[in-house]
Amino acid sequence: MLSYPNFSFDITHRDEKSGARIGMLKTPHGTIETPNYIFCGTKASIKNLSPAQMHEAKTDIILANTYHLMLQPGAELVEKMGGLHKFMGWDGPMLTDSGGFQVFSLGEGTMANEIKGKNAGKHENKNLMEITEEGCVFRSYVDGSKIKLTPESSTDIQRKLGADLFMQFDECTPYHVDKDYTARSMEMSMRWGDRCLSEFERHDDGSQAIYGIIQGGVYEDLRMTSAQYTADRPFFGTAVGGCLGGSDEEMRDIVGFSMAHAHPDRPVHFLGIGQVKDIFTFVRMGIDTFDCVIPTRLARHGTAIVKGVPGETINLKNAQYREDETPLDEGNGITASTSFSKAYIHHLLKAKELLAYQILAQHNVATINRLMREVRGAIKDGTLDALEKEWLPS
Amino acid sequence: MLSYPNFSFDITHRDEKSGARIGMLKTPHGTIETPNYIFCGTKASIKNLSPAQMHEAKTDIILANTYHLMLQPGAELVEKMGGLHKFMGWDGPMLTDSGGFQVFSLGEGTMANEIKGKNAGKHENKNLMEITEEGCVFRSYVDGSKIKLTPESSTDIQRKLGADLFMQFDECTPYHVDKDYTARSMEMSMRWGDRCLSEFERHDDGSQAIYGIIQGGVYEDLRMTSAQYTADRPFFGTAVGGCLGGSDEEMRDIVGFSMAHAHPDRPVHFLGIGQVKDIFTFVRMGIDTFDCVIPTRLARHGTAIVKGVPGETINLKNAQYREDETPLDEGNGITASTSFSKAYIHHLLKAKELLAYQILAQHNVATINRLMREVRGAIKDGTLDALEKEWLPS
Repeated sequence: MLSYPNFSFDITHRDEKSGARIGMLKTPHGTIETPNYIFCGTKASIKNLSPAQMHEAKTDIILANTYHLMLQPGAELVEKMGGLHKFMGWDGPMLTDSGGFQVFSLGEGTMANEIKGKNAGKHENKNLMEITEEGCVFRSYVDGSKIKLTPESSTDIQRKLGADLFMQFDECTPYHVDKDYTARSMEMSMRWGDRCLSEFERHDDGSQAIYGIIQGGVYEDLRMTSAQYTADRPFFGTAVGGCLGGSDEEMRDIVGFSMAHAHPDRPVHFLGIGQVKDIFTFVRMGIDTFDCVIPTRLARHGTAIVKGVPGETINLKNAQYREDETPLDEGNGITASTSFSKAYIHHLLKAKELLAYQILAQHNVATINRLMREVRGAIKDGTLDALEKEWLPS
Repeated sequence: MLSYPNFSFDITHRDEKSGARIGMLKTPHGTIETPNYIFCGTKASIKNLSPAQMHEAKTDIILANTYHLMLQPGAELVEKMGGLHKFMGWDGPMLTDSGGFQVFSLGEGTMANEIKGKNAGKHENKNLMEITEEGCVFRSYVDGSKIKLTPESSTDIQRKLGADLFMQFDECTPYHVDKDYTARSMEMSMRWGDRCLSEFERHDDGSQAIYGIIQGGVYEDLRMTSAQYTADRPFFGTAVGGCLGGSDEEMRDIVGFSMAHAHPDRPVHFLGIGQVKDIFTFVRMGIDTFDCVIPTRLARHGTAIVKGVPGETINLKNAQYREDETPLDEGNGITASTSFSKAYIHHLLKAKELLAYQILAQHNVATINRLMREVRGAIKDGTLDALEKEWLPS
């Protein structure tokens, strides 16, 4: 029986008014306080930021993607180089996903639309070749070769990658499919979860912990079934995955259906969601960790996440910043946020200088980490509503 | 009369055996020891490196390009933002070129071939529209507009940019032209130099110092005339510019012709040259400062400058580094050089991750700064020959 001797999750505070909770999540690479944000280092690198810059931005935990790493450089190589932590120089806690999310997406990086229901009716995955009970076959975006991924191989790859936390292999059910498909897909993911647990246990040396994933699409009864399944199995944590509906309201409903039956004492990770407004919504529903590519992706589009501005962000490419001598944010306490004027960053973007993306990436990461610190403080103080108004003025 | 009260250059040591010299170059933003290397922050940014990262790599001095900055964001904006130092957050000494180098080049960034004689007979500058005694007219690569640059406007722009050291406006004479053209071009550059000095003096507030440029192509008598011209005028420093011949030997000859008649007490800058082998060659001829884009340009091609390897560099894209667990160089003392394996950088390059370019850029800058420190130490100790063998094993 799996016991996770080197891991623990303790809920240290519950804010009855908001519904949010504070937890301490212990891993072999350190203990982090939750709610927290897991930054995406897709290909074993946070886009344009070194581990030192991530630490400077007060980052607690990052993730890497099984799908990308199995194709380049390959799990065997990462294992040979001592595992992901050593390979990329990150000494803190780390998570890997199962690869399923990307395999079932329409291609590299477009799944975010799918889980938010934005591709309804347009589902056409050119790389995915076959889904069977055994697993799936897809075409590598790197060299076009045929690759098979199964619950066992995903587990084996994640073991070789060596992150602290990892995810069961599942089918990330699309939005446009009907309830019958969603139910059959969810049931297969449950069987896949059991196979992941068996494979995980076979090699378990105490250095890793596995999360089960709640699927079930937009349907309350399916979410309940899937949540109860994960709660009944010896997973260390729970993840909310799959299609999350077509609107903020539907997303809240789905998380509600899932959380009602999730294991109450395990950490809950919300897969792929992490705008500022989402953080405030879903910590109130008991979500402990978030992940999303937006902090670094927005940076590559010239966009800074800024506390207290309408819509969460400002775009430094806009002409209004051409002569703006103010820094991005005095409150973040790192030079990326405090020592360059908006006018300078605007110039760098116009001149297509890479330094702009580095500055904005570190600023965005620092801003999200500050958000999470302030959210944790507000949960403890019972002032989450007031903090939300500071970050998101109406 | 120009007196440069806030600048000085003191030659503190001469190595009679090698011909090299040690100097202290004082500017309003600090004093640097020479020989030294001036890193190119073309558009007011060192490619993918922040000022803090440049300091960490022990950088003493950087430059920015008048041509690029006059087009984007414009000298007026930089002046309004407090000058280049404040705009880009660099607090050390800084140089700007005159714009001539780029205007007379074949387009953005290709002049390096021209000064090394690699475009002989293929000179065709699509952007340059007119050269007259007054100055030149060229087409902006940013928006296609017609721009006039004259000795007076180049001086005015460099005053607004506000670097410590700046260059007279000159025609960077191409390689393929005949001696008659070269002579007439040089004579015009001399008249342009006088006009730059007049314009410079008109606004002189002691915060900047101007260099004259030795032209004269590959011809000994012309180089002598031009060198004597710069020595006779109240320039603070001397630069060796223009066409430098088609071979290493010809380049040495040209620098020799120039140095024989350059002012003996002024700092000498060698424009656009800076491979490791060039440093060893030309410090022996009395060159005090170098500049070249190669440290950051090589980084963008996956190439690291490494002490003691044949040919100065290694290319991390090569398959031989796929499983190489060693760092770039333990001796540089910065994490970019010491804490990532070659295998990891190889992976980042294969995955097209921007972090690779940041790591390699900082490593290359740190390596060149270390080279210059070691060169200065060896000049003082009289061990330059031995040091050259360490860096460039035959």
